[in-house]
Amino acid sequence: MKQFISIKDVTDVDALVEEAFSVRLNPYLNKHLGNNKTLGLIFLNPSLRTRLSTQKAAINLGMNVMVMNLDKEGWALELEDGSVMNGSGVEHIKDASAVMGQYCDIIGIRCFPLLKDRKQDYSEQLLTQLIRYCKVPVISLESATLHPLQSFADLIMIKDKWKEIRKPKVVLSWAPHIKALPQAVPNSFAQWMCRSDVDFVITHPPELELAEQFTTGARICYDQNEAVADADFVYVKNWSAYQDYGKIIHPDKDWFLTPERLKISNQAKIMHCLPVRRNLELSDALIDGPDSLILQQADNRLWAAQTVLKKILENI
Amino acid sequence: MKQFISIKDVTDVDALVEEAFSVRLNPYLNKHLGNNKTLGLIFLNPSLRTRLSTQKAAINLGMNVMVMNLDKEGWALELEDGSVMNGSGVEHIKDASAVMGQYCDIIGIRCFPLLKDRKQDYSEQLLTQLIRYCKVPVISLESATLHPLQSFADLIMIKDKWKEIRKPKVVLSWAPHIKALPQAVPNSFAQWMCRSDVDFVITHPPELELAEQFTTGARICYDQNEAVADADFVYVKNWSAYQDYGKIIHPDKDWFLTPERLKISNQAKIMHCLPVRRNLELSDALIDGPDSLILQQADNRLWAAQTVLKKILENI
Amino acid sequence: MKQFISIKDVTDVDALVEEAFSVRLNPYLNKHLGNNKTLGLIFLNPSLRTRLSTQKAAINLGMNVMVMNLDKEGWALELEDGSVMNGSGVEHIKDASAVMGQYCDIIGIRCFPLLKDRKQDYSEQLLTQLIRYCKVPVISLESATLHPLQSFADLIMIKDKWKEIRKPKVVLSWAPHIKALPQAVPNSFAQWMCRSDVDFVITHPPELELAEQFTTGARICYDQNEAVADADFVYVKNWSAYQDYGKIIHPDKDWFLTPERLKISNQAKIMHCLPVRRNLELSDALIDGPDSLILQQADNRLWAAQTVLKKILENI
Repeated sequence: MKQFISIKDVTDVDALVEEAFSVRLNPYLNKHLGNNKTLGLIFLNPSLRTRLSTQKAAINLGMNVMVMNLDKEGWALELEDGSVMNGSGVEHIKDASAVMGQYCDIIGIRCFPLLKDRKQDYSEQLLTQLIRYCKVPVISLESATLHPLQSFADLIMIKDKWKEIRKPKVVLSWAPHIKALPQAVPNSFAQWMCRSDVDFVITHPPELELAEQFTTGARICYDQNEAVADADFVYVKNWSAYQDYGKIIHPDKDWFLTPERLKISNQAKIMHCLPVRRNLELSDALIDGPDSLILQQADNRLWAAQTVLKKILENI
Repeated sequence: MKQFISIKDVTDVDALVEEAFSVRLNPYLNKHLGNNKTLGLIFLNPSLRTRLSTQKAAINLGMNVMVMNLDKEGWALELEDGSVMNGSGVEHIKDASAVMGQYCDIIGIRCFPLLKDRKQDYSEQLLTQLIRYCKVPVISLESATLHPLQSFADLIMIKDKWKEIRKPKVVLSWAPHIKALPQAVPNSFAQWMCRSDVDFVITHPPELELAEQFTTGARICYDQNEAVADADFVYVKNWSAYQDYGKIIHPDKDWFLTPERLKISNQAKIMHCLPVRRNLELSDALIDGPDSLILQQADNRLWAAQTVLKKILENI
Repeated sequence: MKQFISIKDVTDVDALVEEAFSVRLNPYLNKHLGNNKTLGLIFLNPSLRTRLSTQKAAINLGMNVMVMNLDKEGWALELEDGSVMNGSGVEHIKDASAVMGQYCDIIGIRCFPLLKDRKQDYSEQLLTQLIRYCKVPVISLESATLHPLQSFADLIMIKDKWKEIRKPKVVLSWAPHIKALPQAVPNSFAQWMCRSDVDFVITHPPELELAEQFTTGARICYDQNEAVADADFVYVKNWSAYQDYGKIIHPDKDWFLTPERLKISNQAKIMHCLPVRRNLELSDALIDGPDSLILQQADNRLWAAQTVLKKILENI
């Protein structure tokens, strides 16, 4: 594997999941792989699961890890090419990237969208420039539009739980929130589900259509009840509008799921990427209930990260 | 040892001190113990000694360490059970705890009190929830009400210096300050001294009575001169009021200790947990004088932490 | 080597550069040297290159590294001796230093000037007290007046590129900026060039004379064209005024270098320590052009740091 920015960097999705299972079974087997190899973990935004699981994954592989909150510990970044840097940017992303690439064998970066300018966010300007200038393999720790380590962990979770021959019905169900959240998790989940052997449905209010480039192949349904009927997995997640970019939508009908409302499902397993605002996005009863996979999902973040790092290390 | 939250987690205090002496004598002897074990150090407040000494202790035992300033690098925490999270809290402590427990073998946490609501602080809500949900051993790096790693280091210090057969007279002496400081260090020191073979006296202005649950067994004395007379060790420390909770007290008489005022002691050794506001809490002359144990105390923080980690690792 | 605060800590500059070349050739040869040795990296200011390169250098030598943003993660420092600490300072530098020295075998520190009070900055009060009280070898990661790791890397760069018998002409050329920058990089570069076998010229507007203690031996020239004529290396760098201390100078004539204006040089190699404000300090064309050494300079930061750490470890 040369980088891990989206599912497009994965040749064989099923084989990658299988590899994750064997990594999980024997986490310290490949400790030699990371010998004298350094992972730089660069954060421009908060992170709990990604920060700790990726660090731990690298340690399990014998790598050195350098963690840096680039926004707080480094210099303010300039992104525009050719600009006269007489504003707030102190260092150009191309210079910071080239330098980090000299000290690191692999770079992971978290760079959220600003949710102001869709074209800007969806151009993945920062990530793209990092890849171009650092010249080492880059792993997305959640970019403006995608969160592939999360989606990979989610797929591991589904494959781990689903043992029937028929395809599972997997529903991505929009949930309410009070802040404008990125579309990265739903975009990425859609992208991975559309490449997997599942019956995939996305349900949300009409104003919350996701970018088509990520949802092609998915069934879109504006009626949550219809969507969750007979569902085997329900992935609950809020996102802000893609059309009216970054807008917080308060839909007419209630999109908040409860055990009561999931009775029409096939005793669906409940998924969420965390952090979750309890009783706003999802009820305590569902999060803590017997069908919740939420904590196991977080655990799988470790195996997703370790599998990706292993594949990249094998290719360096 | 299953956790290290207070002295109640210690079965044999004397044996633990003895173990600390042998750890100090041979710091790298147990480097195998931490193999493939990860310590998560979670800070919600500033820390110098605790941050560095616990990290170093873990390294000496061959552990991996992941340090995280949860308040700045992660998500704002919600503590209330069952609340609708439509306020500032982004992630519930129970979810953050469960997740961190999946990536770490031991978790250390620093969570100071807010000093606004005594009942809230003394309930140790955050620490208690972490312990309940993370499911791995937890070490307090100073909680709302206690700082056991400090007190253990303090006891190591006293045992190291005191070679006479009679019990030493150990005095905890309140000192002035301009900020409202927690009661964690004096509470904890009292708790440890009351379990140790010393003659223990606490001296402070009447308004500064500590919580009885921690001082049972101690002699309380409102006259500083009487208290320090014949003292062998004087532990100087400020705290804000427990009764009129969090209030900064400016007592009538002067509680600031100087070499002059300690002439009535038995050439008492001077202790302080640091950081110290020089010439406000304690005079330069005492901090830097020949009877000061203050820097050695800080050094013992390392051996206290390493001994605690060792005992927990042996029990995992 | 006992410490690395300025070139005065180096006995044989040429030998040190030679050692850097062999370290670069065989980076993992001395991994045993750092066994059970801990480097504390203490930052009071932002850092990208220094933070990552010094960390990586220590890892290459088998050391443990503890990184701490002392200003944000620790306690506010008091610097004045004998003061009554009833202000904003929570911990005296002498106490913090003594404590850090107990947990670390080597301490690196970054402490920028405030650019308000020249006497204060040039006294290097914080660095000096750290050295005095921590009692372990100290490495400057850029202090108020000097940045020796940068200058050492710069010299490695020049020696690496210059193969002719005649001395190269090396020009330090002031460049415009919108913020008040320290004089540490130019002071330090001057100090190293004056000890090296080069023809060294500093060019700047008259108001921007550097402190004589660092420039003795250098030729000062207020005419940039005259200075860069026949130059083999041009080191571009902004600094604020030393005389009218900390003032941002907007000189009459244009000091911004372009390929056009460097035609009179001997196809000079372009150097800059980074971060660089593109098209304000230096044009894109020069930074990204075929004669730019800027990224290689940053790479040499790693070898400079590793060589210094190696020399100190050999002496512990």
